[in-house]
Amino acid sequence: MKAIIPFKKEGAKSRLGDFLNEKEREELAIRMLRDVLVALSESEIEEVEIISTCSSGGEMIEELKSDLKLKLTVREDERGLNEVLNEVIKEENEPVLIIMADIPLAMSESINELIEHEEDVVIAPGRKGGTNALFLRRPSDFSVSYYGISCSEHIETAKRRNLSLAVYDSFFISVDIDEVEDFIELLIHGKGFSAEYLREIGVFLRVDKNSKMQAEVDR
Amino acid sequence: MKAIIPFKKEGAKSRLGDFLNEKEREELAIRMLRDVLVALSESEIEEVEIISTCSSGGEMIEELKSDLKLKLTVREDERGLNEVLNEVIKEENEPVLIIMADIPLAMSESINELIEHEEDVVIAPGRKGGTNALFLRRPSDFSVSYYGISCSEHIETAKRRNLSLAVYDSFFISVDIDEVEDFIELLIHGKGFSAEYLREIGVFLRVDKNSKMQAEVDR
Repeated sequence: MKAIIPFKKEGAKSRLGDFLNEKEREELAIRMLRDVLVALSESEIEEVEIISTCSSGGEMIEELKSDLKLKLTVREDERGLNEVLNEVIKEENEPVLIIMADIPLAMSESINELIEHEEDVVIAPGRKGGTNALFLRRPSDFSVSYYGISCSEHIETAKRRNLSLAVYDSFFISVDIDEVEDFIELLIHGKGFSAEYLREIGVFLRVDKNSKMQAEVDR
Repeated sequence: MKAIIPFKKEGAKSRLGDFLNEKEREELAIRMLRDVLVALSESEIEEVEIISTCSSGGEMIEELKSDLKLKLTVREDERGLNEVLNEVIKEENEPVLIIMADIPLAMSESINELIEHEEDVVIAPGRKGGTNALFLRRPSDFSVSYYGISCSEHIETAKRRNLSLAVYDSFFISVDIDEVEDFIELLIHGKGFSAEYLREIGVFLRVDKNSKMQAEVDR
């Protein structure tokens, strides 16, 4: 089975801008992608297509490819996410998993459970209404919409098109790393490249005087 | 199998204080407890003990009992959470599930999956290092520690005591409602009493001009 990962390196993770500089944000984005690829390579997924808005995609892939048991290709496309994805899935005759690049805690066991569902559409929600993984048994029957409350939009689309639907309940897939607060999850649960990178650049957890946990950076 | 739910009504959910008044916070706390009880009553759990720091526990229980297929008891105890729980589990010879009262999205299917594990200890993490559900096959062999990064503490305790361990990966169990931001999840995914209550008192979702979603209250 094939997975599709949308990926943006340049200007990635701008909401972390007060905390990490541009180079660090780009490096973190690549490390998170690498964690997702490792989970996919240990799952039943055999092939990954990265849809990249980044012009240096080719080089990046060569680097990522090493060590991974996956057929890895990259498609460069600078259009908006929905536009590209809907063009891609319209041509797809085999089941496909669309999975985000910024969910480094995702586990291969959960990916397998997700794609083993018999339903036409399986949605793994992200926080705040996102869709962090979306399994489409018949991709050409579906249309994605990744802005706003995409989770609700995808549920509605499945219903409107009479496609059977499951919501897959995974905490580790739900944790997308967008804001400094999300580093808390990554530092507590992360065992991969991106958690290691945060530790490398001096990000650590601190409990403040109101017993609230915070990620801070030491430099 | 038995579940234990720690519950605090008086002074509950103080971090929602800028948004809801005290009466609303207490009502929300009870509605969330009710959602958790419904999920438990539809699961394999047969018996629930609520550990309440609230002196009007008895009356509350009579109200909650109606309609639920559960043996429901209440223990009033004003000591700290760890102290009470550790005393309770020391006497417990049967497997027990400790589950939080503020996770209204928890589903009966997930609760069943969690308690069907063969491991001695199963942890379902909450956001920011919490432990939102904790299954103990041999409770008297364990000791809980619910402050700080309790998830890591519980993992360490299991290892130190040579107990086999699983981490159960559930988004809907991970969502505890502590802050206004958490209302976003409840409004998007909630179908129970607490989501209904938020809608009743005029809490709604708004996407601001930076495409950031926010919960607001209309009155």
